[in-house]
Amino acid sequence: MSFYDASVPAFLQILGSLTSILTRAEAHCKAKNIQPDVLLGARLYPDMLPLTRQIQFVCDFAGKACARLTHSEVPSTPDTEKTFDELRQRLAKTSDYVRTFKPEQFDGADSRDVTFQAGPNTMTLKGQQFLNHFAFPNFYFHAATAHGILRHNGVEIGKLDFMGVN
Amino acid sequence: MSFYDASVPAFLQILGSLTSILTRAEAHCKAKNIQPDVLLGARLYPDMLPLTRQIQFVCDFAGKACARLTHSEVPSTPDTEKTFDELRQRLAKTSDYVRTFKPEQFDGADSRDVTFQAGPNTMTLKGQQFLNHFAFPNFYFHAATAHGILRHNGVEIGKLDFMGVN
Repeated sequence: MSFYDASVPAFLQILGSLTSILTRAEAHCKAKNIQPDVLLGARLYPDMLPLTRQIQFVCDFAGKACARLTHSEVPSTPDTEKTFDELRQRLAKTSDYVRTFKPEQFDGADSRDVTFQAGPNTMTLKGQQFLNHFAFPNFYFHAATAHGILRHNGVEIGKLDFMGVN
Repeated sequence: MSFYDASVPAFLQILGSLTSILTRAEAHCKAKNIQPDVLLGARLYPDMLPLTRQIQFVCDFAGKACARLTHSEVPSTPDTEKTFDELRQRLAKTSDYVRTFKPEQFDGADSRDVTFQAGPNTMTLKGQQFLNHFAFPNFYFHAATAHGILRHNGVEIGKLDFMGVN
């Protein structure tokens, strides 16, 4: 297996599962007469990020990780989404972008330096460490938090939906 | 970099960060005069698992993944923890167990078959796919959900604590 196999398919699994989860959340809004904005702006605590930002972060940690690992230009992704449909489009666009990478672009990327911004700090890690210790934990953190926000608000989803096997 | 590098350090990062997070949660209980059992039993929704079970699952997805990937005996881990201290011991024991694996045990494990139980189903995947599509998403899901439960209950932690860089 290659370093490509260690990264791209993992991102695609969750980008896909979140798309379905958002569709379930939108249906929940319709069924329960909830304004979509309420759920899109829902948070687990007042100073946490709302659902919309969680999804945007998931997309960025997937797409930008692939760009950084392959030393490609890191795409600019303004956070303009305001509806479930726009968030699904953002997820789809991110999946499409991630799919543009070829396995050979990842060859050797596990031991190449990746320099990136982590909050106020500029860090350099080997690609494997960047994936393990930065990209994956951030990516899954925001994905699971998005799931938690929806679950907490009564959307009838579960871990199998998060895993994309439902 | 090796397949060992792709798996073991990622598990250890979060097992360590959750240990610190539980210490913060316990201190929060003391400061706010909250019975520890209340926080240990907290859930994001009534039919979700409580904090204690989220931590136990994190441990199992780390330890048992390493066992399965290396075709080692999968350890039996009864879920007996009832206090913050016992949960920290479980995390520590899991970290110690994960550290017993040697890099060479993971050589070739990315393309070896792993047969495992996923709910009611027996599945077989290549090691890399097992790690990407089953072990990691489950591991991070429960870890981030544990973080979300505590955050929702007012424990003053954040993503940097989850990442183990605080």
